[in-house]
Amino acid sequence: MSQHARDRLFGAIDELVLIDPHTHVNPHAPASSTLADILGYHYYTELAHSAGMPKDRIEEPGLDPREKVGRLAEYLDRIDNTVQLSWLFEMSRTLFDVEIDRFTRGNWETLYDAAQKKFASPDWENEVLKRSKVEKVFLTNDFDDPLEGFDANRYVPCLRTDDLVFHLSTAKVHVRLAKATGIEVGDASSLRQAIGKLFEHFVKKGARACAISLPPRFTPDQVDVAAFEKAFRGLANETTRTSNDAERVESFVFWTLAEMCDAHKLPFDLMIGVNRAVYPQGVHQGMDLYDSRVSLIQYRALFNAFPNVTFPISVLAPTSNQELVSYAWIFPNVVTNGHWWYSNIPCHIANDLRARLEAVPKTKQIGYYSDAYKLEFIQPKFAMYKRILADVLFEEFVVGRKWGEERAIGLGRTILRGNVERVFDV
Amino acid sequence: MSQHARDRLFGAIDELVLIDPHTHVNPHAPASSTLADILGYHYYTELAHSAGMPKDRIEEPGLDPREKVGRLAEYLDRIDNTVQLSWLFEMSRTLFDVEIDRFTRGNWETLYDAAQKKFASPDWENEVLKRSKVEKVFLTNDFDDPLEGFDANRYVPCLRTDDLVFHLSTAKVHVRLAKATGIEVGDASSLRQAIGKLFEHFVKKGARACAISLPPRFTPDQVDVAAFEKAFRGLANETTRTSNDAERVESFVFWTLAEMCDAHKLPFDLMIGVNRAVYPQGVHQGMDLYDSRVSLIQYRALFNAFPNVTFPISVLAPTSNQELVSYAWIFPNVVTNGHWWYSNIPCHIANDLRARLEAVPKTKQIGYYSDAYKLEFIQPKFAMYKRILADVLFEEFVVGRKWGEERAIGLGRTILRGNVERVFDV
Amino acid sequence: MSQHARDRLFGAIDELVLIDPHTHVNPHAPASSTLADILGYHYYTELAHSAGMPKDRIEEPGLDPREKVGRLAEYLDRIDNTVQLSWLFEMSRTLFDVEIDRFTRGNWETLYDAAQKKFASPDWENEVLKRSKVEKVFLTNDFDDPLEGFDANRYVPCLRTDDLVFHLSTAKVHVRLAKATGIEVGDASSLRQAIGKLFEHFVKKGARACAISLPPRFTPDQVDVAAFEKAFRGLANETTRTSNDAERVESFVFWTLAEMCDAHKLPFDLMIGVNRAVYPQGVHQGMDLYDSRVSLIQYRALFNAFPNVTFPISVLAPTSNQELVSYAWIFPNVVTNGHWWYSNIPCHIANDLRARLEAVPKTKQIGYYSDAYKLEFIQPKFAMYKRILADVLFEEFVVGRKWGEERAIGLGRTILRGNVERVFDV
Repeated sequence: MSQHARDRLFGAIDELVLIDPHTHVNPHAPASSTLADILGYHYYTELAHSAGMPKDRIEEPGLDPREKVGRLAEYLDRIDNTVQLSWLFEMSRTLFDVEIDRFTRGNWETLYDAAQKKFASPDWENEVLKRSKVEKVFLTNDFDDPLEGFDANRYVPCLRTDDLVFHLSTAKVHVRLAKATGIEVGDASSLRQAIGKLFEHFVKKGARACAISLPPRFTPDQVDVAAFEKAFRGLANETTRTSNDAERVESFVFWTLAEMCDAHKLPFDLMIGVNRAVYPQGVHQGMDLYDSRVSLIQYRALFNAFPNVTFPISVLAPTSNQELVSYAWIFPNVVTNGHWWYSNIPCHIANDLRARLEAVPKTKQIGYYSDAYKLEFIQPKFAMYKRILADVLFEEFVVGRKWGEERAIGLGRTILRGNVERVFDV
Repeated sequence: MSQHARDRLFGAIDELVLIDPHTHVNPHAPASSTLADILGYHYYTELAHSAGMPKDRIEEPGLDPREKVGRLAEYLDRIDNTVQLSWLFEMSRTLFDVEIDRFTRGNWETLYDAAQKKFASPDWENEVLKRSKVEKVFLTNDFDDPLEGFDANRYVPCLRTDDLVFHLSTAKVHVRLAKATGIEVGDASSLRQAIGKLFEHFVKKGARACAISLPPRFTPDQVDVAAFEKAFRGLANETTRTSNDAERVESFVFWTLAEMCDAHKLPFDLMIGVNRAVYPQGVHQGMDLYDSRVSLIQYRALFNAFPNVTFPISVLAPTSNQELVSYAWIFPNVVTNGHWWYSNIPCHIANDLRARLEAVPKTKQIGYYSDAYKLEFIQPKFAMYKRILADVLFEEFVVGRKWGEERAIGLGRTILRGNVERVFDV
Repeated sequence: MSQHARDRLFGAIDELVLIDPHTHVNPHAPASSTLADILGYHYYTELAHSAGMPKDRIEEPGLDPREKVGRLAEYLDRIDNTVQLSWLFEMSRTLFDVEIDRFTRGNWETLYDAAQKKFASPDWENEVLKRSKVEKVFLTNDFDDPLEGFDANRYVPCLRTDDLVFHLSTAKVHVRLAKATGIEVGDASSLRQAIGKLFEHFVKKGARACAISLPPRFTPDQVDVAAFEKAFRGLANETTRTSNDAERVESFVFWTLAEMCDAHKLPFDLMIGVNRAVYPQGVHQGMDLYDSRVSLIQYRALFNAFPNVTFPISVLAPTSNQELVSYAWIFPNVVTNGHWWYSNIPCHIANDLRARLEAVPKTKQIGYYSDAYKLEFIQPKFAMYKRILADVLFEEFVVGRKWGEERAIGLGRTILRGNVERVFDV
């Protein structure tokens, strides 16, 4: 009986048409064109590499897609226990109409060929979205993205700002920013002007969020103009610059972004805790890790200074989720956002979700986003989440609080869809 | 069948007459006089504020209680998922004889009026305690509380010492201490004399514990008299004082408190990890948060220096509970104490309790305290805990270890009542 | 039905013949000779002491074994809730043929006498191994252990290196090292030579791993020869030496060990996070605790510098397990290793295991080791683990992923036995 109730809850939640509030989808090529686009996802390449596959077997220049998938198939049985590989099986069933529960030397070609037929169909992009019940997909756009040539109603732009905060002083970013805005940044005033232009451009093109990923050490604070300008000049001199200079510039740019979010009424997605290139010899996008010694107390000044900016926050370590629940419980402008990266496995999701549902106002929780690079990943990742959500709704609310099923389903809808609409105003 | 066994375990545990070993109840007005006393509890005001209610709507001076509850009702459906709101429904049923599972614009007046009738009955205080099966309630008393005009057998005094440790140098605390003890503190000797007087007064009035809440940065160590006196004089000069001065004074006062606990055989409740006023614009008592980067290793010198003082310890973050279990497993004088504040939600309690029951001697665990400001909260908070306790006893001991139900119930009794009697000698 | 499936999974896993990849067994006296050897295990003495037993009652010089056990029996009912005491009951049943579920003043002698008969039987060592289904047992050998007089095929040597890294500069270690290698260490070159000799000796005698336990503060980095030699000379002068000197020496020795592991193809077991002698008045081996503020990011340089050395890693706090899962998912040379010490209780094991099985390649997980000092502990500790493993395999794989039972059992075998063979090449 309890399994039936769980199934009914899952079924009801699974009928929802979704908005995916954070992905890395390329709107000019949103769907895959070969299975190598799927298996080239860093979750597979990094796990295959971790399980023993040499990096150059995966990253050989000019490698044929079919050959690449065949090579990966030699290693993927070593990760057949992982939830990441279960996404492939889920998508095979729901999108490619192939039932498999292993991916090996012996069967990879069956999937490759079946998938290829799908990719070749003229309407594949729409078909994936339809089968996945997804209506809108948020993007992650470089600050100098022209945001042209795609339907911004379906693919919602989002201004990604890591380069501005952490690499403003590099020649490359300086030139890109000048090209995008027509402004050569040399002081606080020109910086503010340039960033203002970016926001105007993004908002005009339909952007619904500003976003950034942040290292554990980052502790933003308000920096005054004189201190910023001194530090910014300091950074220009490679021999005398200090880490203090860099931190001041980062803080100032970050603070300016928050001011712009305030002015343009954009939520500011903070993805807190990643250390980049911890394993520089890793595969593409498989080099980053974290230090769980990070605290949201580092954002205390920010949350207080910008009461009108909504901060949807993602954290990497379950330890940080415990703090996130408490901060979202106290700060009106802190919203819990999905289950990010290393936290995005069922046992962590279940604990983190349970804590959020028990202690954070239901209107302040963005349930999930896929973080996908290709549309095909949205369905299996959301399916994983929805199964856990249905279980938690059943155990905590239907059994624990004696709620009717409809009420529990309503809570699921709020988390999965209602809050996305309201928080991001889509 | 397993549900029946759980119910039997819960039933047996629920029959226990309780001692609540930590509350903020005012013994001169222990029960509520209107529903605004209930809904004015910071758990509701801070969650309503977090969910969008402006602070001045809640904290308007001279606000009529009925109006205040009506205003909160506009927002509380946004937190109907939280366990905190479930306490209101539990208490409505068990204390006010009203069955509700929502609190909205549409039904708040029904509860308000029903509760008002109860509050108006002449014997409400006794009725609440009887329905809640509570025999004794520990207080949290300011150091200069005269401790008069109430039954100290029912309302057990407890010396709260935050002001002494963290604000001794302020004029306000200096004056309060002088007034309470007749001693002007100017050096180590007068400090010791003054604190000694406080302990004598409290012990004479029936106090059973000394207590303090501590910020994550706090790392007490023994400070010699000369260093203390230099730092104490340093603090007096606002222009030259340093944070080192403050830390030395804090450590010295704290250490003196531990010495007095030793001399007077009082347990010293440590509530470790809170940062005050992280969100200064928050509602009353809804401003504090934490930094999970805290360790019990910071108390190593203390635990070693006072082998005869029992330290019942509460922690804020589940991460800290993992350490607490290990420290209570090793140090004879470290006792686990309840599930505090941000840790006091079912998913955290369940994990924390399981770890304690698996690895800490059963005689060293204080199961739960309500932290209540009004008597009406004791029942629903303990009920939440007892349900989890019954589940864990069933799963871990009846099923996992094949214990008979009576033995499992006995373990529950030890945790909930026996240890409170023994540790606090009540 | 689900209980039957769990039982079948447990049964199949329980048939495996095991290799225990980390113990402190003494190969010259591997089995117990009295029950005092069992109850003298620090898990019992430290918990009895924590529950109130004075240290000198346990550690009285010349204490008769029977008397010691009788004294402990006075206190052990206070820890009858702990999983550690359940190991005693498990072993009583499986090894001593005595069914008990309490150990008190009233019944301890029954067990004592029954066990004594077993210990006295001429083939007890083999009998324990047979009943425990254990084939090989890894040791923890001091660097100057001659490794003679035992069957290295059954008792596999492992070079323990704490003394070399953390106490090289003490006269005692200097003399022991000189005696073991014939080399007086005075500089980098003689150090490398001496350590090289140790590795040659150990490898020749069949050692299959190098191991070390590390404090939370430890952050190894490559130190050049000149810096090491300066620091090493610095340490010799007690009045001028600095903590920097100590850290440089530690890092250099540690790095040299990693180089030797690389050269000799030995895995390097890192047991990360213990603070020694936090409670110096504690019982023997019951003084150590931890600081959960530790991160694997501290080993970033090491993992990058030695891609060909396998690092089986154990952590103390569940918080650290979250990082360990992520680091093992990314770094090819990081392997998860067992459930260590304060993490070795069912609720932590269950969460930690679940995360590993969901996100770490199955070929990179060493399921469990006993850490036992006497052979009798291998069975009950592994039994605890195998029950949890069977549950997780059932819930996550048979139910969650719809795997057949055989496939789930195969995963269990890989974790418990296959990986031990492959990683340690036994």
